[in-house]
Amino acid sequence: MIFREATRQDLPAVLALLADEDTVLDPASIVVGEAHERAFAAIEADRRNEMLVLTDGADRASEAGEAGEVVLGCLQLTYIPGLGRNGQERALVEAVRIRADRRGSGLGAELMRLATERARVRGCGLIQLTSNKRRTAAHRFYERLGFARSHEGFKLHLES
Amino acid sequence: MIFREATRQDLPAVLALLADEDTVLDPASIVVGEAHERAFAAIEADRRNEMLVLTDGADRASEAGEAGEVVLGCLQLTYIPGLGRNGQERALVEAVRIRADRRGSGLGAELMRLATERARVRGCGLIQLTSNKRRTAAHRFYERLGFARSHEGFKLHLES
Repeated sequence: MIFREATRQDLPAVLALLADEDTVLDPASIVVGEAHERAFAAIEADRRNEMLVLTDGADRASEAGEAGEVVLGCLQLTYIPGLGRNGQERALVEAVRIRADRRGSGLGAELMRLATERARVRGCGLIQLTSNKRRTAAHRFYERLGFARSHEGFKLHLES
Repeated sequence: MIFREATRQDLPAVLALLADEDTVLDPASIVVGEAHERAFAAIEADRRNEMLVLTDGADRASEAGEAGEVVLGCLQLTYIPGLGRNGQERALVEAVRIRADRRGSGLGAELMRLATERARVRGCGLIQLTSNKRRTAAHRFYERLGFARSHEGFKLHLES
């Protein structure tokens, strides 16, 4: 398996993961809209944002017409500068997904372990995330990984 | 009152707010360390991070030896690009503080209202924050402002 920053080529596969959490969507069926292109370019260009993918590492790129590696999971890391913690950045995790047909085999834990290690090596003092209160299995998952469920997470949707 | 981005001159006052939540510290007593200087410069230079202050707007700068405006509160906004919400950014709120001797007069609500409006005008689709589970009064405060307490907040401290 390979853990790396997503490239533009991975965008349909990442959007397929984000679009439906319970079904495996064929990346080839995903329409990449202009808003997606812009948002992905913004993440790629920002030195404090990374869209990361875990792939099967298979090299199918040389076979004409074949897709490349299969994207098994993704997450986004944002590195936030701050005045606390002796000036260390904090890492925020968003958009954690594992392909529906590859769950239950420890891939999620591996993805989170790799992300946490990446944040640690960068020098972050803290890694944080929120998880919807309905997702009780996810809460046990994060607690097993050592995260403390110490905070309430508040969200407010904005109309433009 | 004035709501604006903090300048380097405000840094001691912001650090005084962050250092002690229950006492009013004199900004002149704050030692601004090298890590603080670096972190503040990183926030200032980043187009997706802002340290914002609410001040009394008084112009004492012309009087020799006097400090400028009094900083009544602060918060940090981080604008996070993402592939969801039609490519709209989400705003993350951290480091919300109101001067201990100025609480209970609606300043906190005003600060959060101004921050939410700033995120909305920028085009953010969502504004979010976490609050320690022990701070039950703060939870009611955010709910009164329209935030939904929909998520669990997880944190993991990292050793470098």
